[in-house]
Amino acid sequence: MNLARGARRTAQLLPDGPGAALEEALRVRDEEIAASEAMATRGADLITELCGRAPRMLTHCNTGGLCSVVGGTALGVVLELHRRGTLRDVLASETRPLLQGARLTAWELTRAGVEFRVAVDGAGPFLMARGEVDAVVVGADRICANGDTINKIGTYAHALGAQRAGIPFVVVAPESTIDPDTTDGAAVEIEDRAAEEVTAGFPAANPAFDVTPSDLITAIVTDRRTIRPGRGERPDA
Amino acid sequence: MNLARGARRTAQLLPDGPGAALEEALRVRDEEIAASEAMATRGADLITELCGRAPRMLTHCNTGGLCSVVGGTALGVVLELHRRGTLRDVLASETRPLLQGARLTAWELTRAGVEFRVAVDGAGPFLMARGEVDAVVVGADRICANGDTINKIGTYAHALGAQRAGIPFVVVAPESTIDPDTTDGAAVEIEDRAAEEVTAGFPAANPAFDVTPSDLITAIVTDRRTIRPGRGERPDA
Repeated sequence: MNLARGARRTAQLLPDGPGAALEEALRVRDEEIAASEAMATRGADLITELCGRAPRMLTHCNTGGLCSVVGGTALGVVLELHRRGTLRDVLASETRPLLQGARLTAWELTRAGVEFRVAVDGAGPFLMARGEVDAVVVGADRICANGDTINKIGTYAHALGAQRAGIPFVVVAPESTIDPDTTDGAAVEIEDRAAEEVTAGFPAANPAFDVTPSDLITAIVTDRRTIRPGRGERPDA
Repeated sequence: MNLARGARRTAQLLPDGPGAALEEALRVRDEEIAASEAMATRGADLITELCGRAPRMLTHCNTGGLCSVVGGTALGVVLELHRRGTLRDVLASETRPLLQGARLTAWELTRAGVEFRVAVDGAGPFLMARGEVDAVVVGADRICANGDTINKIGTYAHALGAQRAGIPFVVVAPESTIDPDTTDGAAVEIEDRAAEEVTAGFPAANPAFDVTPSDLITAIVTDRRTIRPGRGERPDA
């Protein structure tokens, strides 16, 4: 999210005194809240358009208020559908190795009074194949100029499942996530993290993020617009 | 595997006295060992034919001696490639929720002196996309008449990853796994297991197995033959 950028913006005003910094911090907060609400509204509208009245949603990792403000990004869309009374079911993938789905998303959905089930990451594509999911919504760490999307490891596997099941795969992220200087996913170095996150005592391959090619993405919803890579639309256009 | 069938065969001879039952039990054991070795040889030959000299393999769940005899099924192929000195790398997917990969496969590979890395289930397809895997080998709980394969949850997601990466996806299982009376995967009821396996305190969707459609399977290797569903070959033919 934009928290680091917001902190930088605020810190730059510290020489002008605490009043100026506080004012800027509140402005950052208000912008973030407005962006989150805009994504929730636009995303929920799109999901309703794509899926009809009562969608069953799957989401990966945590994209709610805990990593952002108010509803966050992808989870904000789920919560908005719930507020509208048009949400039928939610699956939260547990998101190994750090279990952001099973811990944070589960906590946020419980707090919001939304019924949900946790699924292991390997089950998501099969639950789609079995006809139990109408759309997948995820966040983004970074979006390349062509729409390739870097997000928490496991996102790509869910995108493959959605494509095979013929259901929408929607990325929800603020406009600031789009990096027009990164041509595509092949240009991105993915960090491999410590084996200890995955397993005690054995070596591990532990990429923290993965790349979802833009052809698997039905739509990218930002706070300002909806981009449809499948129709040849590009984030950098 | 055939353990239940072997136990039944042995138990049927108990009325003839312990000698007859023991003789049958040893026969069952010898047949299982021969089947495992036949699968290992045929599977390793096929992987070498498909991938060239030094393949990097990914396997899911546990399919080694702990669930069978000697090398087991899919893991037996990996071990045979290692014995031949032509194995370059092994990734073992951890296999949530019960972690058969991170616990059992990791233990068996260590014991056999094979270097490997564990990966979370959500990482497998991305590691394939990044070009780090040459072939995927898995076992089977049941193989339908058309080649659709029922196996541990997460298998299907790995098959989607292999297809997209353009690498072979090979099922290794004894002939007895083939069920000619089950037309296809749609006819199979998949058991949903207790939420407690996945998460403490939240509801869960926990299918124990999934269905990999035969069009995603490059080959099925049994103790008697190699079936190539992609070429229109059927297990029940």
